[in-house]
Formats: sequence, C-alpha cells, structure tokens
Amino acid sequence: MKVSAELKEFFLRGYLHYVPHLYIDCVIFGYHEQQLKTLLTKNGFISEWCLPGGYIKRGESLQQAADRTIVDRTGIENLYLQQFRAFGDPNRTRYKDFDEQRWFELTGMKIKKDNWILDQTVSIGFYAITDFSKSLPSTDLESIESAWFDLDKVPNLAFDHNEIVKEAIKAIKMQLYHVPIGYNMLPEKFTLAEIHALYETLLGKKVDVSNFAKKLIVLGIIEKTDETRKTIGHRSPILFKFNKQKYDEALRDGLSFI
Amino acid sequence: MKVSAELKEFFLRGYLHYVPHLYIDCVIFGYHEQQLKTLLTKNGFISEWCLPGGYIKRGESLQQAADRTIVDRTGIENLYLQQFRAFGDPNRTRYKDFDEQRWFELTGMKIKKDNWILDQTVSIGFYAITDFSKSLPSTDLESIESAWFDLDKVPNLAFDHNEIVKEAIKAIKMQLYHVPIGYNMLPEKFTLAEIHALYETLLGKKVDVSNFAKKLIVLGIIEKTDETRKTIGHRSPILFKFNKQKYDEALRDGLSFI
Repeated sequence: MKVSAELKEFFLRGYLHYVPHLYIDCVIFGYHEQQLKTLLTKNGFISEWCLPGGYIKRGESLQQAADRTIVDRTGIENLYLQQFRAFGDPNRTRYKDFDEQRWFELTGMKIKKDNWILDQTVSIGFYAITDFSKSLPSTDLESIESAWFDLDKVPNLAFDHNEIVKEAIKAIKMQLYHVPIGYNMLPEKFTLAEIHALYETLLGKKVDVSNFAKKLIVLGIIEKTDETRKTIGHRSPILFKFNKQKYDEALRDGLSFI
Repeated sequence: MKVSAELKEFFLRGYLHYVPHLYIDCVIFGYHEQQLKTLLTKNGFISEWCLPGGYIKRGESLQQAADRTIVDRTGIENLYLQQFRAFGDPNRTRYKDFDEQRWFELTGMKIKKDNWILDQTVSIGFYAITDFSKSLPSTDLESIESAWFDLDKVPNLAFDHNEIVKEAIKAIKMQLYHVPIGYNMLPEKFTLAEIHALYETLLGKKVDVSNFAKKLIVLGIIEKTDETRKTIGHRSPILFKFNKQKYDEALRDGLSFI
C-alpha cells in the first residue's frame, strides 16, 4: 500500500487542520421491506471493516463534521444524522500496539508511536436510517470499499465499532418512542402494514406497534390519502403519506407515546 | 486573583496529563419533596456560575473522568452519572475573545492565545439525580463556591452551560421511559403518591404518571412493605421500597413502558 503525498501530510501535520483526540463514527442503518442492514467501509490500512467516520475540522461543529464525513465517505446525501453517544475507553483504538517497523515495511512511511493519530481519541457516535435500496454507497474514492451488511451478519469490526453498532441499535429503540421515523425509509405512499413492519423491524421484537402509527395519525404526522393499494384477492388497504412540516416539527420538539 | 504554582503548571503543561480538546460537564439535579434544583459552581476566573466539570486524565475513560470530577468538585460520592450528549459548537467556549493583557493584569500570569486550554473543546455532558437535602456540596476546595439553584431560577451561566442544562432536562424526560428512577431520591420507604410526585416533577407536566409506578411494581423493581404511613384523619397509605437488585438490572438492561 503506497501512501500518497496528501495522506503523508495528513499523518504528519493533520492536527493543524483537524481537532486531535476527537473522531466521528456513523452507524448508517439501511431499511428496505423489513430488512435492516448497516453500511461498512474498508481502507487499505486496517484489515477489518470499519464504520464510516472521520475527523472534525478545526472550526467545525460535530453535526457539520458528521454530515461532511458521510458525504465524503459514502456519497450519500441529506441523511438525518442523530448524535447518540460518545465512546471514550482509553484503549478503544488499540493503537498502543502500533508497530513502527511493520508500518514502515507496509507503506514505506515512518510514523512514530507518539503521532497525533495514535493518541487517545474519543469518538462521537451518530446514527441515521435510510432506504438502502436507494442509497448505493459510492465506491469511487481511492482505496475505499463500502458495502451494506445484514445487521445479524456484521463481521468483527475494527476498534470498538461492534460496540458502537450495538449502542446505536439501543439508542434507536429508545428514540422510536420520542421522534417520528419513516420518512426516506418508506415509499412516498404506504400502508399502515408497511409502517408497522418498519417499527417491528427496528424494535426487533413483537410488540403492539399499532400504537406508534395511531399516535402519528393523531398528531397529523401521517395522513390518509384518497388512494388504496391495488391488490388482487384482498381488501385494498388505504395509502398514507407523511406531512413533512409536522414530521420536521416533531423531529425538533420530540413526541411522547405515553 | 493570585495563581498558585500548581495552577500555573496546569495552564502551561496540563496537556501532558489531561487529554486536550475534551472536557466533561455534569448536570447534577437535586430532588426533594417536589422541588428540583441543580448544582452550580464558581471559580475565581470566570464571573458566571458554571456546571461542575473537569478534564479527562490521559488513560481515563469518560465515565471515570465524570465520577472523579464530581467527587473532586462537589464532594458528592456514589452518584449514578449518565452520559447524555456531546457539545461541540466551535464557538461554545468563546475563548477566541481571550484577552492576554487583561488576564496578565488579573493574575500576574502570561497565557498566550494558543494555550491548550483556549483551543476548540468538545464537552461530554453527564447528568445525575440525587436528593439535595442529603447532598450538601463541599465548599472547602480552594477558590470554589458551590450552591443548589432552583431549576427555574438558573442564572446566565458561562459558555453554553444553559444549553447543556436544557438538553439534560430533555434527556432525563426521555430516559424516564427507559430506566428506573427514584433510588437515592426518595426516602427508603415511600408511598405511591411520593413516587408519582417525583415523576411529575421530572416530567414537568401533568401526565398519567401512575403508569410508571405500576410498571415498576409489575417488574418487581418496587415492592410493597407491611407498613403504612401513619397519618391523622386520612387513610394510611401503604409504604413501598426498592428491590435494589432488580433496580440495578433494569438500569443496565433498560425497561420499556409500552
């Protein structure tokens, strides 16, 4: 693996442009017809798959850094990224095992153990849910591979990334009770059965999910249309759509299901 | 304000012992008989009241740093601190307005604008709830004043600390639906009316809080005792107590109120 001049500069003086000791990791959940996947990336330096992530530029907010990172690393735009937890185990990156000699053999580049990238680093976790059938990750960035993995087939990831995925799932299950979901994950017009299936898949258990949809109807976040889904041999179910303004208000202000 | 040799060393070379660019801020809510307060501190360098907080020592986890900070700054031990959000607005500390000359006149110490403490810093927010009548903040640490403030009378705080308090309140209201509360906030034996009052105070609105207590009973987290509260002229209400083992399990695993 040859190191480009740009990457070399990043290793040697990146701390002038980025805030050291801090990182952003993003868990992008992909949903489509009751299947749930997560987006992983790979670079030439770490053998395991990783979460898409990146450093915070000096002068950037956490949200700006997360948004930029996702566009840069995956090509997916306009994701609603939600911060959910910081990960700060001092041994989480395992860089204390960094082998200067092996790195030199691998890349032809000298990096010392006290390099800024190898220092104690706290990662701020963000998550998002999108429709993976519409969000094909970009693979044209140099030395980066991206792919959707079934959530129950996530391999051993680098660093503490398996824990970050696990905590993101916990956070989403909690958030479901307090923010609306579904926009960008369901077709523009959908049946109640389809939004029930979304909630069931995200909660990962059989609960009475009809309460969620009922609440969204009561609050005007989803609305009946005049149309029905054309099906053969069954009663044709009514189609619903989101009221984007009320959806955004509820995203901002939160909603309570009790 | 005279700067001690220890503090001078901290300003000049603290980054060798602490992780720069990172900070912990703690919102300690105090509850007692339907009153809710928050703990604020003051030091000799910042004119506004602040949240109790501190830096992360190199090699420490976020939780360890939060626990140590609270004991050091307030003298309150064994608080259950819960991480809730990271705050990363690049202008949150407003240190870009730092005046070298004024600082020198104030302290007799030369600090440059590029000092590590004045650099972009992300704060990890933690919150806890305790009984303020039992948790008198320690005031014997040099140049530190601590006091409980009624939550609706919190003054203009330093930096973005008002926003951190606001977000902590939002986070607690959300958490109430997913973790048990009350241990360390209620008397050892308490009535259902008392635990209802705790939920009402924390939620800050009249909702049917009896669902919360019912769920805690169903899960065995609170249990009936054989005793009643002795009152004159009223029906004597039954006293309940926490099952600490089930409480701790629910803290770890979460609980759902739907």
